Amino acid sequence: MNINLTDTIAAISTAPGEGGISVIRISGKNSFEITEKIFSKNKNEFSQLIISDSASHTIHFGYIFNGDILVDEVLISIFKDPNSYTGEDVIEISSHGGNYIAQKILLLVINNGARHAEPGEFTKRAFLNGKMDLSQAEAVADLIGSQTEAAHTSSIRQLEGSLTELVNEVKDEIINVTSLLELELDFAEEDLEFVKKDEVQHRVEKLISRLEKIISSYIKGKVIREGVRLVIAGKPNSGKSSLFNYLLKTNRAIVSDIAGTTRDFIEEKLIINGVLFNLTDTAGIRSSEDLIESEGIKRSYSKIEEADLILFLNDSSESEVDISNNIETFKKDFDLKKSIMIFTKSDLNKLQKFKEGIHISLLKDETIEDLKKKMLHKISIENVTRQKSDEIIITNLRHKICLEDVVTSLSNTLVTLNDGMTGEFLSVDLRDALSHLGEITGEVTNDDILNNIFRNFCIGK
Amino acid sequence: MNINLTDTIAAISTAPGEGGISVIRISGKNSFEITEKIFSKNKNEFSQLIISDSASHTIHFGYIFNGDILVDEVLISIFKDPNSYTGEDVIEISSHGGNYIAQKILLLVINNGARHAEPGEFTKRAFLNGKMDLSQAEAVADLIGSQTEAAHTSSIRQLEGSLTELVNEVKDEIINVTSLLELELDFAEEDLEFVKKDEVQHRVEKLISRLEKIISSYIKGKVIREGVRLVIAGKPNSGKSSLFNYLLKTNRAIVSDIAGTTRDFIEEKLIINGVLFNLTDTAGIRSSEDLIESEGIKRSYSKIEEADLILFLNDSSESEVDISNNIETFKKDFDLKKSIMIFTKSDLNKLQKFKEGIHISLLKDETIEDLKKKMLHKISIENVTRQKSDEIIITNLRHKICLEDVVTSLSNTLVTLNDGMTGEFLSVDLRDALSHLGEITGEVTNDDILNNIFRNFCIGK
Repeated sequence: MNINLTDTIAAISTAPGEGGISVIRISGKNSFEITEKIFSKNKNEFSQLIISDSASHTIHFGYIFNGDILVDEVLISIFKDPNSYTGEDVIEISSHGGNYIAQKILLLVINNGARHAEPGEFTKRAFLNGKMDLSQAEAVADLIGSQTEAAHTSSIRQLEGSLTELVNEVKDEIINVTSLLELELDFAEEDLEFVKKDEVQHRVEKLISRLEKIISSYIKGKVIREGVRLVIAGKPNSGKSSLFNYLLKTNRAIVSDIAGTTRDFIEEKLIINGVLFNLTDTAGIRSSEDLIESEGIKRSYSKIEEADLILFLNDSSESEVDISNNIETFKKDFDLKKSIMIFTKSDLNKLQKFKEGIHISLLKDETIEDLKKKMLHKISIENVTRQKSDEIIITNLRHKICLEDVVTSLSNTLVTLNDGMTGEFLSVDLRDALSHLGEITGEVTNDDILNNIFRNFCIGK
Repeated sequence: MNINLTDTIAAISTAPGEGGISVIRISGKNSFEITEKIFSKNKNEFSQLIISDSASHTIHFGYIFNGDILVDEVLISIFKDPNSYTGEDVIEISSHGGNYIAQKILLLVINNGARHAEPGEFTKRAFLNGKMDLSQAEAVADLIGSQTEAAHTSSIRQLEGSLTELVNEVKDEIINVTSLLELELDFAEEDLEFVKKDEVQHRVEKLISRLEKIISSYIKGKVIREGVRLVIAGKPNSGKSSLFNYLLKTNRAIVSDIAGTTRDFIEEKLIINGVLFNLTDTAGIRSSEDLIESEGIKRSYSKIEEADLILFLNDSSESEVDISNNIETFKKDFDLKKSIMIFTKSDLNKLQKFKEGIHISLLKDETIEDLKKKMLHKISIENVTRQKSDEIIITNLRHKICLEDVVTSLSNTLVTLNDGMTGEFLSVDLRDALSHLGEITGEVTNDDILNNIFRNFCIGK
C-alpha cells in the first residue's frame, strides 16, 4: 500500500461557516513542533509552550502568532501518541469561529510544515494505526451523516463494534471448521470420514443461513442510511403540495426545532416512524400524455423511475371520466409495485364508486395516518426506530457484497464437499470465505478499497 | 439590569452543517452536575466521572448516554470557574460532527436542566463576569465575521484591548483635569485662576483633537468592517460581467483556495489591497431612459444610490454618438463623487478623442491595475492591510457615536470655561464625558445597549 504516515496532516475539523468556535486539527510526528512554533503562552512577547513538558489531555490558553503578528486567542488541546483519535501526536486548536480565522491558522500550520489533510485522512490514520477497524471507520462517516434516530443508532452500534463482533464470530467458526479439515489432512489423503463430512456440512449450512438473514437486513439498512426516494405525482391541483406540507408539518426532522441550523438541510425531507423520506421535486409532472410529449417533463419522469415510492394523486372532485382516465394513466405508466394510488379531498365525498387506492382528506387526520401506514408497508418497513439491541443491520453496500462473497465461498465448500473432494480443496474455499470477511474489517484491503471509502468523508475527519 | 446569571446555558458552538467535530458548550452553576448525569467513562455500564475530582483544563474520553441508550463517543473539556471563557464552570462536549448528533446531545443537556443559550449569551456572561469589557465583547463578533486581513487585524487588536487602552488613557486625563478643578473647589467659590484656566483649556483642546482624529478613522473602519458596496453599471454588452470575472479571478478571497469552504460565502465578494468589495447584482441596469421607465429597473437604481462606489462602463466599440449619449446619462444620473466612468475594450482603440474617464482592456493587465488604484482612491482608502501597530481604527458605529458624545461634552467644557463659570459647572461637563467613555467599555450600560449588541452574535458564542 502506498500510504504515507511519516508526514503531519492538518485540516479544519468543524463545519465551514460562522460559529462560535472552529477547530483546526493537526496529526503526525511534527504536530507538537509545529504548534510550538506558532503558539505563545504570552500575548506581549512570544513565550513557547514546551509540549513535551505538558501532560496529554490538557488544554492550554494562549495566542497564535504569525511571526510577530497576533492572529488569535486560542485554546490548544494536547493528545499524545497513542492516546489520540489517530493514534499519533495530535493538537487541536480551538480558535474563534468564522472561515477567515480558521483558514488563516490552517495556512500558518501548513506553512510551518504540515500538509493539508485529504477527506477522511484522520480516520484513515486511525484505521492504519489500529485504533479502529474498517467497518468502524465507515461508521464514523455514517454517524456524521445521520439524519434520523435509526441511522444514528445503527451507525453508533457499528462504531462500537457490532459488525466487528459478527465478523469475528463467523471467522472463529470458519477457522474451527477448517482446523477439523486440516486435522484430517495430517493423517492421509483418504476421503473424509462420513461423520466429519456431516459435521462440516451442518456447520457450514448453519453459517450460510445466519449470514443470509443478515444480508437480507440490507433492504432495511439502505432505507435507514439513505432514506426513501419519494415522489408525489399527479395533475396540477390534485393536492400534491398540500399533502407534502401537511406531512412535513407533523413529521419534520428535529433539527428544525432549534435555531442555528440551516433550513436548507431539512428542506424536502420528512421522517415517518423513523424512516427518512427524500422528496424529489415533481413540478411539471402531470398526466401520461404530457409525459411523453415534453422533454422537460421526461426528465421529471426519470426521477419517477428512480423513486423508491410514488404517491399518485387524483382529485376526487374531478369528473368520473377524468378520474377513470387518470387511473388508466396510472396503471400504464407507473410501476405498480412501488406506487400508491390516492384520492385526495375525500371529504368532498363524490367518489365512493372508486374502490381502488386510498382516500384521504387533510381535514381527517386518521386518513393521513392510514396513508403513512400504507407508505411504510409498501416499502416493506413498518418501523426502523426500534432496533433490538442485538440486531445487526447491514447499511453499507460494501459490507453486503463482502458478506455475499462469503456466502458464495461457503456454498462452494458445500459443492466441493458433495463432490467428494479432499479436505485440501475444501480449505481453499474456506480460506476464500475468511478473506472476504477480512475485507469488511480491513484486515484484507488495498489502496483502491481505502480510497473509495475515505474519499466520501468530509475534510477534517 | 434584568440579567439572569443563576441558570445554566447550553448551545452548539460550532457552525451548523457536516464537519468532523461539533462542540456543545455548557456554562453555569450546574454544568458539571448536568454533564455527570449523561457522561460515562465506560461504554458497557454507566460509570460516572466526578468532575470535582478532575483538574480544570483537562480532557476526558467517554460516552454520552440518554438513559441506557448510547448516543456518541465524545471528549469533554473541563473549565472551572473562574478560568473559563465565561468565568463560570464550563463544559465543552466534542462530539462527532453533523447536525443530528449535536442537536441530540444539546437536547439531552437541556432536558437535564440547562437552558438553550441566546445568541452571544456566553460572551455576554464573559462581559458580566468581568472577563472582558464591552468593546472586547464586540470585537469577538467582528473577529468571527472577519473576511479580510484588515478586518481581522482591527478586531483582534480590539479584542486585545486597544480601544480599552485608549478609553483608559482619555479617562485618566479627564480625571486629572477634573481633580485640578476640584482642588480649586476646595478653596473657594472664586473664579478659576488664570493659569489653571489656561491649562484646563489647553489639555481639553488636546484631548478633543486626539479624539477627532480617532473618530475620523471611522471612514476607514467602516470599509474595513463592512466592505465597499460596489456596483458595476452600464448597457448590456458593455463588459460588466467580463470585468467582474476578471477582478474576481485575481482578487478572490483566500477562503476559496482551500476545499471544504462553501462557495456561497465569497460569491460576489472581491478583495483589492485588503479592501472587501461587495458586488451588488446590477442585472437590468441599462441606460438612463430605461431607469426612469421601468419599475424593476428602478429597484436596481436604488441599489446604485446605496452604493459606495459605481463603475459606469462604456463600450469603446460603440459609435461616437452613442457614447456621447452615454456620457450625458452618466453625468445626469450618477453621483459623480462616487462614480468612475470607464471605457472598456480600449484595445479596439477607436476612442482616443474621449479624454474623460479611464480606458481599460482586459488584454492589458496594466490598465486594470490602474483601475484598481482609481477605485481605492475614489473611496479615499489606498490600502487597509498595513495598519500601524499603534494605530486605532474605529470600526463600530456605536463607538464612533460614544466618542462624538465625549467630544461634545469636552467642547461644552470649553464653552463653560470661556463663559467664566465656576469649576463646579465644568465638572458636570467632564463627568458627562467620562460617562460617554464608560459606555464604550460597558462600565456605563443598560439592558437595551446590551441586547442590541448581543443579538447580532451567532448562537453558541
